[in-house]
Amino acid sequence: MRRIGIVDTTFARYDMGSTAEDELRKMGTGFKIIRRTVPGVKDLPVAAKKLIEEEGCDIVIALGMPGPKPIDKQCAHEASQGLIMAQLLTNTHIIEVFVHEDEAKDEKELAWLADRRAREHAQNAYWLLFKPEKLRKMAGTGQRQGFEDVGPIEGKSGMRH
Amino acid sequence: MRRIGIVDTTFARYDMGSTAEDELRKMGTGFKIIRRTVPGVKDLPVAAKKLIEEEGCDIVIALGMPGPKPIDKQCAHEASQGLIMAQLLTNTHIIEVFVHEDEAKDEKELAWLADRRAREHAQNAYWLLFKPEKLRKMAGTGQRQGFEDVGPIEGKSGMRH
Amino acid sequence: MRRIGIVDTTFARYDMGSTAEDELRKMGTGFKIIRRTVPGVKDLPVAAKKLIEEEGCDIVIALGMPGPKPIDKQCAHEASQGLIMAQLLTNTHIIEVFVHEDEAKDEKELAWLADRRAREHAQNAYWLLFKPEKLRKMAGTGQRQGFEDVGPIEGKSGMRH
Amino acid sequence: MRRIGIVDTTFARYDMGSTAEDELRKMGTGFKIIRRTVPGVKDLPVAAKKLIEEEGCDIVIALGMPGPKPIDKQCAHEASQGLIMAQLLTNTHIIEVFVHEDEAKDEKELAWLADRRAREHAQNAYWLLFKPEKLRKMAGTGQRQGFEDVGPIEGKSGMRH
Amino acid sequence: MRRIGIVDTTFARYDMGSTAEDELRKMGTGFKIIRRTVPGVKDLPVAAKKLIEEEGCDIVIALGMPGPKPIDKQCAHEASQGLIMAQLLTNTHIIEVFVHEDEAKDEKELAWLADRRAREHAQNAYWLLFKPEKLRKMAGTGQRQGFEDVGPIEGKSGMRH
Repeated sequence: MRRIGIVDTTFARYDMGSTAEDELRKMGTGFKIIRRTVPGVKDLPVAAKKLIEEEGCDIVIALGMPGPKPIDKQCAHEASQGLIMAQLLTNTHIIEVFVHEDEAKDEKELAWLADRRAREHAQNAYWLLFKPEKLRKMAGTGQRQGFEDVGPIEGKSGMRH
Repeated sequence: MRRIGIVDTTFARYDMGSTAEDELRKMGTGFKIIRRTVPGVKDLPVAAKKLIEEEGCDIVIALGMPGPKPIDKQCAHEASQGLIMAQLLTNTHIIEVFVHEDEAKDEKELAWLADRRAREHAQNAYWLLFKPEKLRKMAGTGQRQGFEDVGPIEGKSGMRH
Repeated sequence: MRRIGIVDTTFARYDMGSTAEDELRKMGTGFKIIRRTVPGVKDLPVAAKKLIEEEGCDIVIALGMPGPKPIDKQCAHEASQGLIMAQLLTNTHIIEVFVHEDEAKDEKELAWLADRRAREHAQNAYWLLFKPEKLRKMAGTGQRQGFEDVGPIEGKSGMRH
Repeated sequence: MRRIGIVDTTFARYDMGSTAEDELRKMGTGFKIIRRTVPGVKDLPVAAKKLIEEEGCDIVIALGMPGPKPIDKQCAHEASQGLIMAQLLTNTHIIEVFVHEDEAKDEKELAWLADRRAREHAQNAYWLLFKPEKLRKMAGTGQRQGFEDVGPIEGKSGMRH
Repeated sequence: MRRIGIVDTTFARYDMGSTAEDELRKMGTGFKIIRRTVPGVKDLPVAAKKLIEEEGCDIVIALGMPGPKPIDKQCAHEASQGLIMAQLLTNTHIIEVFVHEDEAKDEKELAWLADRRAREHAQNAYWLLFKPEKLRKMAGTGQRQGFEDVGPIEGKSGMRH
């Protein structure tokens, strides 16, 4: 049975980890979910790597909600670099799900966005693990997680499948 | 017996290392504390890694107080990147506790903030090591270290536990 | 038979992966193409590394189309750092083909640019793998991928070959 | 006998390497100094790592004087990241001593600053190697290298030693 | 016989690789030059690492000419980080020779600058490999590659050699 890790933070203002778990369970079966929670986004990289190397996870979803200040942006940047390095050191995908507080116009939209993005990235994680051909067919189609998809651009096209 | 490393700097203007040590001792027993002090925040990453690999620490608290100038911000950024890399190379959490001098309106508030943040992150370190389920229950609840928690946002919720 | 990996994203708004594949097939034979699609540019580094280490690819073309916002620029920056690290950890070239949405004045030009750049970098990948002396002869000649080549500058010259 | 590496640059406008060496010899005995000079600050990381791994140095002092232009600042940033990585790969401290040309109001002050900072960091290196308890007692006391120490802030204190 | 690697780009607008080769041959004998050309600066790190690990080069000169746009500056930054990492992973010097297009006031000066900087850094590479004591004597003397040396600053001096 495959293992999917979910790691989130106490800093986030919405329980995106539980949302991702809920969505995964709607997607299918055949996997076990292992959850961890850390203080902030900069604690995510090593937590994700430990889920992979110590708990045998085949993929990890790492969720965080960086604040609106410049220092928060920098923390998110450092966390993203760490998550990429963690993936390179383990040859395992870690799906980063960050929702910046200032992406939404108010708290209600922020909650909606966090919920939606967590769900759409949970779907991405599921497909990467179980149905990579599903993503393959969506190549170059302008998918977005949270806000509406922008779609493909018109114009001279390479051959499509 | 578990080992908790504490590393701080001579650059900082408040003895956050001793504060963290004091808070840890209030939290419980069953651990030994090993302390180191380095000149500045950029010396923290290797010091933390040595505490883990040479002194057998199971977790490290790394404390620093970057100055208010752009070069200080850049040093803090480089130090943070290094602390994340040190964690990835050791599969061990290093809790970064940085207090930027310009976060507080005067020296009195700065001292209060440094004390408070060091204590709250010492609690995070303790929980990560001994009671991860405690953090797990605080997922997505808007915790902050130092200033007041912002709390969770209202709105459509994933399922909570 | 050599193996060329192609990895692109569902975030991109043009199917650059298929364009690259089409161009490669026009260049010659003697290679097998292995394709993967991931959600966004930050998922490219580990996907490329897996193509090299798990699928035996001798070179990889990684294609993405970062959006126009500052956060998109930062994602592209993190992805580029990761792609360089992936190359260093595998001693294998990964040709990055990024087209920023704001490089073109409208969607029509964007489609043209994405198509053109993907093709010209597919040629670079082919030459790196099969005809490195072809690139060697173009050293210092101001080649660009997509928009027109700027060409070499006039002036006192080192000896040319 | 312990070995202390000193590496500096031809780019710097003051012989900080010799200053550091002079200060070390005033501090005590029981160590051998090994010196290297490289073109610029970006050449320092590998030079420091070679001093550690090929010459057996127990600590290294890396000195540079970045220019005042944005590109110089970026070079210094890249060099600092490299120096931190070199430390993490060797579990050995490398004390970075950078003096930015625009930190001083004129050349006379710049020379004074370069001399003073090199000396104070040479002291840090000596203490890290031979008397770590000396640094331990200065934790949180607002030490600066070059310009005057800012000292500790007043306010509610953790327990001091 | 020692091996010196030279890697440059098709993106550059001046054949700096040939200039570096020409200068090296004027410096002396006892080495073999191995050349590679890649598309852009971000392809330099892995190419340099391959020259070291697969072709046995004892030092590498990596030459590039980043464009004047912000994205070009970012590419150069990423390439520099990669070149430093490549050095750390091989314990081998890679001399970075970047000429930014906007450093010169016109194409004529740009050609002069590219030629001059390539030559002066080729000298640095030669000295690092064969005569490190030559660089050692120039420590802190304000050397520049391309434009005129700025020289050492006056003032209180450490002891010189």
